[in-house]
Amino acid sequence: MGFEHREEHVDEGMLMIQANLDDMNPEITSYVTDLLFEQGAHDVFWIPIIMKKGRPGVMLNVLTDEASAGRMETVIFRETTTLGLRYGRMACHRLGRSFHEIETPWGTVSVKAGFHRGELVQFAPEFKDCERAAKAGGVPLKRVYDEVRLRFLQQAAGGPD
Amino acid sequence: MGFEHREEHVDEGMLMIQANLDDMNPEITSYVTDLLFEQGAHDVFWIPIIMKKGRPGVMLNVLTDEASAGRMETVIFRETTTLGLRYGRMACHRLGRSFHEIETPWGTVSVKAGFHRGELVQFAPEFKDCERAAKAGGVPLKRVYDEVRLRFLQQAAGGPD
Amino acid sequence: MGFEHREEHVDEGMLMIQANLDDMNPEITSYVTDLLFEQGAHDVFWIPIIMKKGRPGVMLNVLTDEASAGRMETVIFRETTTLGLRYGRMACHRLGRSFHEIETPWGTVSVKAGFHRGELVQFAPEFKDCERAAKAGGVPLKRVYDEVRLRFLQQAAGGPD
Amino acid sequence: MGFEHREEHVDEGMLMIQANLDDMNPEITSYVTDLLFEQGAHDVFWIPIIMKKGRPGVMLNVLTDEASAGRMETVIFRETTTLGLRYGRMACHRLGRSFHEIETPWGTVSVKAGFHRGELVQFAPEFKDCERAAKAGGVPLKRVYDEVRLRFLQQAAGGPD
Amino acid sequence: MGFEHREEHVDEGMLMIQANLDDMNPEITSYVTDLLFEQGAHDVFWIPIIMKKGRPGVMLNVLTDEASAGRMETVIFRETTTLGLRYGRMACHRLGRSFHEIETPWGTVSVKAGFHRGELVQFAPEFKDCERAAKAGGVPLKRVYDEVRLRFLQQAAGGPD
Amino acid sequence: MGFEHREEHVDEGMLMIQANLDDMNPEITSYVTDLLFEQGAHDVFWIPIIMKKGRPGVMLNVLTDEASAGRMETVIFRETTTLGLRYGRMACHRLGRSFHEIETPWGTVSVKAGFHRGELVQFAPEFKDCERAAKAGGVPLKRVYDEVRLRFLQQAAGGPD
Repeated sequence: MGFEHREEHVDEGMLMIQANLDDMNPEITSYVTDLLFEQGAHDVFWIPIIMKKGRPGVMLNVLTDEASAGRMETVIFRETTTLGLRYGRMACHRLGRSFHEIETPWGTVSVKAGFHRGELVQFAPEFKDCERAAKAGGVPLKRVYDEVRLRFLQQAAGGPD
Repeated sequence: MGFEHREEHVDEGMLMIQANLDDMNPEITSYVTDLLFEQGAHDVFWIPIIMKKGRPGVMLNVLTDEASAGRMETVIFRETTTLGLRYGRMACHRLGRSFHEIETPWGTVSVKAGFHRGELVQFAPEFKDCERAAKAGGVPLKRVYDEVRLRFLQQAAGGPD
Repeated sequence: MGFEHREEHVDEGMLMIQANLDDMNPEITSYVTDLLFEQGAHDVFWIPIIMKKGRPGVMLNVLTDEASAGRMETVIFRETTTLGLRYGRMACHRLGRSFHEIETPWGTVSVKAGFHRGELVQFAPEFKDCERAAKAGGVPLKRVYDEVRLRFLQQAAGGPD
Repeated sequence: MGFEHREEHVDEGMLMIQANLDDMNPEITSYVTDLLFEQGAHDVFWIPIIMKKGRPGVMLNVLTDEASAGRMETVIFRETTTLGLRYGRMACHRLGRSFHEIETPWGTVSVKAGFHRGELVQFAPEFKDCERAAKAGGVPLKRVYDEVRLRFLQQAAGGPD
Repeated sequence: MGFEHREEHVDEGMLMIQANLDDMNPEITSYVTDLLFEQGAHDVFWIPIIMKKGRPGVMLNVLTDEASAGRMETVIFRETTTLGLRYGRMACHRLGRSFHEIETPWGTVSVKAGFHRGELVQFAPEFKDCERAAKAGGVPLKRVYDEVRLRFLQQAAGGPD
Repeated sequence: MGFEHREEHVDEGMLMIQANLDDMNPEITSYVTDLLFEQGAHDVFWIPIIMKKGRPGVMLNVLTDEASAGRMETVIFRETTTLGLRYGRMACHRLGRSFHEIETPWGTVSVKAGFHRGELVQFAPEFKDCERAAKAGGVPLKRVYDEVRLRFLQQAAGGPD
């Protein structure tokens, strides 16, 4: 299948930056997410929380390497309403990865596969490609996902690695 | 136990007013809740939701009788950031209720009991009283709840209704 | 594939019963869910909400036909801590359904398919069967789902209806 | 300020369509949201819920007029994994609206204002415009919002309506 | 009361493993939870989060000792859809514990008590036992909890330790 | 504007204490929050989570310095129902702060401003003051916030620092 492997590894030097926001217009969240990814965030997500006086707030979470942490902080302080943030140390365990092109009746779709101790444990069709195929073919998005998974499994089973 | 009964009944003419908020400072929520209760809301609560562009918003819910609905709308439009609201018809089934005073080592606590078809199915110590007792007695709040429940059950079992 | 069809239809006479709970031990939720299904609930689910004084509560939702509503109310009043509940009218649109048996290397799995205006739009492997197959075969549960979906799609494409 | 008014009104004939999803890839949610808006949905949002066996699912909510309800149902059945949906009647109360252009140092921003019984109660800068201005000017998005609100209020106070 | 004590202690060498899932069928969650507990997880829970593109995802959290961490990772990579996971160091402070048998009219119920610096601060009736008693006795589950708590408190107050 | 600066800094020695609660009356949450702040907690918040058997629970989070951690633990063990808690190390990055008094037509409102590397990045009107002004003036709370922000920005732009 033409695998392009990347090795499984653990990265010890990661930080999770967190900031609780209870006085911010939520329209800003997606904008902030985009800026943080542009600055090199490894992951960005939001958790609904309940803050002082029972306020429904959100907690911003940014996974970053240490070298980029300063840039993350600048985005957070400039763009959100927080007066402080906190961070803790984390290690990240990332699977070995390979990348594949799967042909479907509605176009090619990339698939990212994941390997744990050399064994294939994961494969994820690329959302953007599936979306494009669904629109091009006039078929439901879930139908595209099924087709890609079916073909990936057939190739993985049938062919030499 | 000196019960003061109110009858179990169904009220058909209730409205649930809802407004989705994705651009409002959450600090405003508790203030709006208070105003709505002052204007006669039967219940007010908030649901975390995910809105357009994946924004983490909240849905305001106000349970009201029809006569008060106009006052609720005025509060919502004045105080929140919504450009519209919606409402649906609901019926409310309320238990028969009786009110009791329970003596504890740390002061008197009111208890609200609920009756379904004449049978005692519910009893709830009044939070404010329990909080006061816990502070007065220097005991954990959960200890006060347990004591009130224990004594209510003993009275309910032992005495004539 | 030996389809056993049930017709697509709309049922106008449904009720959604709701109760907000802010003073109940959450251990009780799964027990209440089971009892409601035993009494004939069409669906039962819980929504995290924020109640008076910023308390993190849950809203119980029970979808029921009118004939069973009284039994649902009795369970709710007996088993939860609510002093009242509310309900609104709903119509339910249910797909036409057919039921299938799919053979896998790890045992037979039932699949429920859904039809909208005669077209196959949905199919769902039965969780319990997949779980059993995964344990029997020592394979990941997601692998079983994929295999069942793959085989269902191949049969649906290949054979006469 | 060159107001272009639309009248405050109540629309009685609306439907809220709901579907609970506990077996769907969440990557599909934003795609479904987009399709529903394209088909004329008035609003689309998602509520995190807890379903049978304690599964973390989501409830899709689509606010629609009756004329469009069939198109919404077709999207939901084709694109999600649900075997049924439900709907209830709702009335929508929409504020009178006017539309404004506010000049800022970083470009023009549209503002939508809302009127309840003739009184200005709401105004919301257009997110897309603010985002463009923030990027063009290299200023924080929240700074753009503040500037637009400040200028809108000054105009509303100072000038003839 | 026949206490069987275990000592209060702090365990410094714990890990919290986390994985964000935005493309997984939620039916898999309870299955994964069970497998992780079977492999020795100290705790497993799920947090609803909002991920890239506003997708409603869930974050899996697994509290584990270091010796078991590898087994947890294998379950997570095999059974969920994640391509990576992260972990941080945590210390766990566990109360001294004692175990009790409480007789009720509907059967025996185990109670786990917790001690902080030698003082009784906690006691929790065993859910499974309460559930069995409720079903055996045809009484509400909450009634069983109340009875167990009442009897535990009476024993704790009355008798020698 | 009469700034009273406090310096931007990072505090390495902070702890985040967490406890998962699935069997506690949620009425207790606001009481516990208040006690923890009285004992010197830097922040307290609650996260809705899904626990064993699919129970909707909450996770208590307490940010504290090490010197106060013992007092936090005592409150948590006495007042909640947990049999254990966990904590991890965190560093807190706090902005430089200055405090201002802003005059409005409805009274004086305090504003807390935040500085990152000497640049003004944040300012937050004090909720309690805004609430009092809104009630005194009979104006919407959001109107007070807007007025305070407008005047703060005008002062910050116009005058010497």
